[in-house]
Amino acid sequence: MTSPGQQQPALIALTTDFGASSQYVGAMKGVILGINPRAVIVDVTHSIAGQNVAEGAWILDDVVDAFPDGTIHVAVVDPGVGTQRKAIYARIGTQHFLAPDNGLLSRLAVRRPVLTIRELAEPSLWRPVVSHTFHGRDIFAPVAARLSLGLDPARLGPPLERMVELVWPEVVVVPGKIQGSVRSVDSLGNLITDISADTLRDAPRDESVQIECDEHETVGIYETYGDQPPMTLMALIGSSGFLELAIVGDSASMMLGIKPGTKVTVKW
Amino acid sequence: MTSPGQQQPALIALTTDFGASSQYVGAMKGVILGINPRAVIVDVTHSIAGQNVAEGAWILDDVVDAFPDGTIHVAVVDPGVGTQRKAIYARIGTQHFLAPDNGLLSRLAVRRPVLTIRELAEPSLWRPVVSHTFHGRDIFAPVAARLSLGLDPARLGPPLERMVELVWPEVVVVPGKIQGSVRSVDSLGNLITDISADTLRDAPRDESVQIECDEHETVGIYETYGDQPPMTLMALIGSSGFLELAIVGDSASMMLGIKPGTKVTVKW
Amino acid sequence: MTSPGQQQPALIALTTDFGASSQYVGAMKGVILGINPRAVIVDVTHSIAGQNVAEGAWILDDVVDAFPDGTIHVAVVDPGVGTQRKAIYARIGTQHFLAPDNGLLSRLAVRRPVLTIRELAEPSLWRPVVSHTFHGRDIFAPVAARLSLGLDPARLGPPLERMVELVWPEVVVVPGKIQGSVRSVDSLGNLITDISADTLRDAPRDESVQIECDEHETVGIYETYGDQPPMTLMALIGSSGFLELAIVGDSASMMLGIKPGTKVTVKW
Repeated sequence: MTSPGQQQPALIALTTDFGASSQYVGAMKGVILGINPRAVIVDVTHSIAGQNVAEGAWILDDVVDAFPDGTIHVAVVDPGVGTQRKAIYARIGTQHFLAPDNGLLSRLAVRRPVLTIRELAEPSLWRPVVSHTFHGRDIFAPVAARLSLGLDPARLGPPLERMVELVWPEVVVVPGKIQGSVRSVDSLGNLITDISADTLRDAPRDESVQIECDEHETVGIYETYGDQPPMTLMALIGSSGFLELAIVGDSASMMLGIKPGTKVTVKW
Repeated sequence: MTSPGQQQPALIALTTDFGASSQYVGAMKGVILGINPRAVIVDVTHSIAGQNVAEGAWILDDVVDAFPDGTIHVAVVDPGVGTQRKAIYARIGTQHFLAPDNGLLSRLAVRRPVLTIRELAEPSLWRPVVSHTFHGRDIFAPVAARLSLGLDPARLGPPLERMVELVWPEVVVVPGKIQGSVRSVDSLGNLITDISADTLRDAPRDESVQIECDEHETVGIYETYGDQPPMTLMALIGSSGFLELAIVGDSASMMLGIKPGTKVTVKW
Repeated sequence: MTSPGQQQPALIALTTDFGASSQYVGAMKGVILGINPRAVIVDVTHSIAGQNVAEGAWILDDVVDAFPDGTIHVAVVDPGVGTQRKAIYARIGTQHFLAPDNGLLSRLAVRRPVLTIRELAEPSLWRPVVSHTFHGRDIFAPVAARLSLGLDPARLGPPLERMVELVWPEVVVVPGKIQGSVRSVDSLGNLITDISADTLRDAPRDESVQIECDEHETVGIYETYGDQPPMTLMALIGSSGFLELAIVGDSASMMLGIKPGTKVTVKW
């Protein structure tokens, strides 16, 4: 590991389901800056749907490539906090990740090499008293801060062979038809599917392609929102490279009442 | 241009309609810090009403005077992202602005000199692959980061004669009567109008002045919220110097169902 | 006072009821960084319920121990802004606080020594023009920035004997029964009570203990959310050391319609 603390300020990026402007995020930042006052802390998002580990896993997959090598990510979507679930460190690709071992990092692993996994097992690196319900503040934040000061990840705890992996719904591709599902809803209410641009390579873009989601339907795969008039349901390849359903100028999720998990079919 | 990158950390301020705690804002910050790890990034707000360019233009006008000279603002309210609309750099007053050329910067220009406008036309300064739907991450963020390192704005692209300007609803002033409109709703639900303190110079402050908005009415123009009891609709001159309608201790916008665009009349 | 500005970047922590991603918070940060470009600014939370001074006071009590010595807190829940209420500086424990003198700092004082209180009375340290409705931007932000540069708090204004203290609802403890109330709702919708772990020392944890809130009831005091199945109302000792009522995987506040102030009874 190149020490992220030496040449330039270390970057710690936070992703949680604590909600926008949560005091719990504030507390995590206080702990980090108490240990490393020069850490640079960035909020990725705190609006992951509550305890939705799969959505969190997808969002991480969407955003990490925008972050520089060596970024220390802290990801907390943690329904099992305080139970027997492990807390882990993983080096995935060129970045570092701290998270509960519940599959939250497993979407990252689909497209990137997992170079190291360690269990967080060294309480001397944590806060002296660890709450049963807030490992973000008491375990993950202090460990991130210490890594940002150059701590060798080998000090965090023993290596693990593997981390928990979520089972992803299968995207079914047959000639003339792809079936996937909504895997996350973004902050604008757009429905992001698990159907990648690559999977759609052979699909036409014009009105001969039909996209269905729940009882709703639209035709054509467009390039951007401005290609359709306001209040239209439309499909496009979004900024993370996946098929997306949007209502121009409004929230598709709210207007259509669609949540992650809903099936999406592309036919031509 | 004095180089904002040399003497002290450069300040980059973000204003978008991406929503509080949006992963898209997180991605923009990752890109910026990947290019300039010492940039200081501040969120102005990400709660501009979706695709409401006019509201965004007013909010920028409200807040920029709180920011220091040399601040690099990135403003993204961008219904036309990926279409033919230009992306621009403008130096307005003592600060720098990057935005889509859709009028978002045009309220700033009402009260401040526009010193330079350039089209962003130099892809080598952007991310290598530019999404059709997320120029915030792929164009504006990397350009802001490079400006924060001292890049000469002349490198961004060719100068433009003018930028797109919104047409603002007229504030009609006749003796004893002013007619304007709600131009933005703040994070507390207060209704901010386009009627400035200056326009109200001749209006009385006591109960002989009557303010109407939709079917609602209040009398008197007060100094501060504490001048009236909780749950009262009241008028005052707000912190940006414009007439404001507030319900003490609650959201006037939610309680009254009033949105930007609603007419406001002041009579005496 | 050890100067927080000299050895390492000074930390300024913001707590308000302005709402997530509020432009008013953005303006405060612009003012701070205009005075001290090296200040490190952290959002504690901006989601205090509107004008709920008591909730703000509790949240500060919950979070400040996560922040390092010398942190400069700016807390603005300020229904009386622009009226005769004072603005104060207080040194409480090892940290510094700027706030309206309305009781917002008084919960901190229950458990920590109040070492100094001063009235903010030196307009030369403020913005040149002070709005009647936004002292956060015009008084508290510039004063915080100047403290972060090492300004001696004695310069802020004359010492005060005391600050305004809220009267806290009594927590009644009799053998076999404790009566308290919900004192705040966190960003996940959990209902945090004013019944401390210490008060509950003699209460059993098993199903012989019964917790009532409004017409709702649950038995047992658990260690963490994962001890009960999703959608169950449960009681536990939360991360700030107080009894908490939660619905696993959802918002107890929204599901049950319970707000701060509601009585909570623990019986065994």
